[in-house]
Amino acid sequence: MSKPGSGFVNELTPQSADFPGWYNDVVLKAQLASYSPVRGCMIIRPYGFAIWESMRDELDRYIKATGHDNVYFPLFVPKSLLEREAEHVEGFDPQVAWVTRAGGSELEEPLAIRPTSEAIIAEVVKDWIQSYRDLPLLMNSWNNVVRWEMRTRLFLRTAEFLWQEAHTFHATAEEAAAEVATGLAGYVKVSEDWLAIPVVQGRKSPAETFPGADYTHAVEAMMRDKKALQAGTSHMLGQNFAKAAGITFLDRNNERVHPYGTSWGFSTRMVGATIMAHGDDSGLVLPPNVAPLQVVIVPIFRSEEDRVAVAGAIEAMEGQLAETRTVSGPLRYKVDWRDETPGYKYNHWELRGVPFRLEVGPRDVANGSAMLVRRLDRAKDPLPVSALQEELPRRLEAYQRMVFQRALDFRAQNTHEANDLGGMTEILDGTGGFVMAPWCGSAACEKAVSEANGATIRVVPFDSPDEAGSCIVDGAPSERRVLFARSY
Amino acid sequence: MSKPGSGFVNELTPQSADFPGWYNDVVLKAQLASYSPVRGCMIIRPYGFAIWESMRDELDRYIKATGHDNVYFPLFVPKSLLEREAEHVEGFDPQVAWVTRAGGSELEEPLAIRPTSEAIIAEVVKDWIQSYRDLPLLMNSWNNVVRWEMRTRLFLRTAEFLWQEAHTFHATAEEAAAEVATGLAGYVKVSEDWLAIPVVQGRKSPAETFPGADYTHAVEAMMRDKKALQAGTSHMLGQNFAKAAGITFLDRNNERVHPYGTSWGFSTRMVGATIMAHGDDSGLVLPPNVAPLQVVIVPIFRSEEDRVAVAGAIEAMEGQLAETRTVSGPLRYKVDWRDETPGYKYNHWELRGVPFRLEVGPRDVANGSAMLVRRLDRAKDPLPVSALQEELPRRLEAYQRMVFQRALDFRAQNTHEANDLGGMTEILDGTGGFVMAPWCGSAACEKAVSEANGATIRVVPFDSPDEAGSCIVDGAPSERRVLFARSY
Repeated sequence: MSKPGSGFVNELTPQSADFPGWYNDVVLKAQLASYSPVRGCMIIRPYGFAIWESMRDELDRYIKATGHDNVYFPLFVPKSLLEREAEHVEGFDPQVAWVTRAGGSELEEPLAIRPTSEAIIAEVVKDWIQSYRDLPLLMNSWNNVVRWEMRTRLFLRTAEFLWQEAHTFHATAEEAAAEVATGLAGYVKVSEDWLAIPVVQGRKSPAETFPGADYTHAVEAMMRDKKALQAGTSHMLGQNFAKAAGITFLDRNNERVHPYGTSWGFSTRMVGATIMAHGDDSGLVLPPNVAPLQVVIVPIFRSEEDRVAVAGAIEAMEGQLAETRTVSGPLRYKVDWRDETPGYKYNHWELRGVPFRLEVGPRDVANGSAMLVRRLDRAKDPLPVSALQEELPRRLEAYQRMVFQRALDFRAQNTHEANDLGGMTEILDGTGGFVMAPWCGSAACEKAVSEANGATIRVVPFDSPDEAGSCIVDGAPSERRVLFARSY
Repeated sequence: MSKPGSGFVNELTPQSADFPGWYNDVVLKAQLASYSPVRGCMIIRPYGFAIWESMRDELDRYIKATGHDNVYFPLFVPKSLLEREAEHVEGFDPQVAWVTRAGGSELEEPLAIRPTSEAIIAEVVKDWIQSYRDLPLLMNSWNNVVRWEMRTRLFLRTAEFLWQEAHTFHATAEEAAAEVATGLAGYVKVSEDWLAIPVVQGRKSPAETFPGADYTHAVEAMMRDKKALQAGTSHMLGQNFAKAAGITFLDRNNERVHPYGTSWGFSTRMVGATIMAHGDDSGLVLPPNVAPLQVVIVPIFRSEEDRVAVAGAIEAMEGQLAETRTVSGPLRYKVDWRDETPGYKYNHWELRGVPFRLEVGPRDVANGSAMLVRRLDRAKDPLPVSALQEELPRRLEAYQRMVFQRALDFRAQNTHEANDLGGMTEILDGTGGFVMAPWCGSAACEKAVSEANGATIRVVPFDSPDEAGSCIVDGAPSERRVLFARSY
């Protein structure tokens, strides 16, 4: 006998055969998002938006708990402000969308749709920061930004996306450095504890540093196709934007000095990361904390008599389920009474990555139990109905850990070392994965790798041990291995 | 003896002397918002944003509880889509900001920054609505919109603002009409129960109906200057947008028909309404449900010995306060240990509308009590420290009702009847307020009133009793009185 509804699985492009095709199929068929009439912009549909809301709310709790206030700055950045910080404008100008006409007439100065808000914020806070007593200034904004992209992918790279951008100002470089770490720690927490995605923390190479920043820290995750995805970045802006905007304050020694800035961001591309880090040939695999639905109940019956018995049992169960609390709030469950076959329903909810389904048929009713089926491995376990309220939260927590451990194991299995460029390329073209390799620190060598095999330095990991070696390109001395990978 | 810190009150323009001046003073000095380098756009600062977040979250709970899903549609609306519905484009075109250049080249078709999203949503859902089984489609989006305004006011009228726009589609006109009522009921609930602002519900006159709608329902509130402010609108779009976009579905009779649409919105102008509905010469008066801070504790001492005693008492109190729950979540409180005088602190928190302050001095410590002072009337009441956890939630609820009742009484005192145009103008130019007057239903008469005295029909109230009369302008028969007022 075939697995329930296995005939439907073919609707999805198999993940192993065509990963990008699989990804698009999942996004569209699970109704997470769809294309829009506007080039490069997407529509986030209810199920996709609920996933975004869950990670957004979790990160927002962290942001507030660490003393940051939510604020709102304008969508528009006047051209002259965007151009003040030289590296910044060079980095973003090619991607900017410009408003040139409004209210029936041409604007005197074009307005950029914000690609990010450093430039306008620096101009504004000039009036707010007068003394060291006004510092630190810890702000965050949830908003939409526009970066005109030539090649777009739903969630991963869209002309408009939703994100959070934190912007902070500090009296000293040390305090700003601590803030860069605070931002990154939030991304580690949300990625690992909420999205069950293990991340590598580290520092970006100069080529991948944010335009206008002194340095950039990032977290990088491995997707199921073994490519890397950047899961959040935290930038030390130093005094760059403060100098460009002319921000000064009176410090404790009564001297006028420039404050130090940081910024850090996390976007809707993390919905794409969640899909690609866990999904399989049946569709999404959602960790319970972020799953819009955690349990779906599928009634199974052939006769009217059975239907009545099953309905009665489910009604009794619902009293318990409504009282059940999980780590991420009240249990999110649904009973699927649609007029479709059980197999159709299994596939429907597997595609959507619902962690557990509870099958309730006449035999289960007779036993006072329900059959719990895990999405990831379809393991079945009959649960006494009387134990649901106590067991489900425990099982969901265990499943959350299981999904994380699977991703961690997958990354460990697919992280390799290479000591020469040929060896790295062989790994990337073969099994693929993360490649830890020595690098001398030069931009030319980083570029040479990218031209040879498409990999870039994702980060210089914080926990990479000291290891004397020779740069994979020019053989110059290297102090530790860095993380190379092909990436999104 | 003067009231504590009364010398500072003069910093604010008195409300009675210059209401718009008072409003701007409060917004800027309480740091709710500030002007931006972009014409007509504002910056929402932490305290103002926290007020917005509170009302946003409360409305979001209602929107979800009534079965609507949050989604996200693009910021951009292609020109050709915006122009499809004739009345709609005529209504919005003069206010549109246009992106004409992006990614380094001119766009083939200009993109409007959404002034509202009916046009793009109708185009998109065409593919989603195939059968009556796909209906109702109940969506909501929290986003930013741009309407280029000539004369802007912080929160009340800004070129960019934040809002929620719900968009729904239904199989029948009856279901759509019920949805229009569901939207309006949410605005009544948030305005009255959360913001303590009583509202008049009714139907807009044709002149004030949303461009492209069959009819518009609205809630209207009275500000402290006796002018009206529209606190939310709910539109019956009929089949207008569905026809323009070519949306059809197979109904239960297997016939292809157009669905009926509704849309409803509520924006950051409600932060302005909250300020203007309750504030006084000392600044903001915030209802506890929406107040970012509900209680501020001010230590009072002269000697170091007293300081130590007061600090100990406050520390003991904080254990209780941290456990205190209110209608709107855990008690939001703060201890103000800044190195300033008590008078300075009283003024600081009164300006910000914090409902209660607790003064704790040596005598209070000796009595095991703290002095509770209400923001609105500065009534003082010593509370035993042991009763704080039980008493504060009750007191806050009573204060919420008190603020609402004050607004209700104020509206009742300032709602008048007029039976001729001269009488109406006399009221408006004299004491001011809402004027209930007979109207025949003609647009010409509505316009004549506006030209005579600046008042418009705010709504034809749902609860206006039948009352045969003669139109205030042309004397034609009128069946009931409608609400005229000068408005924001």
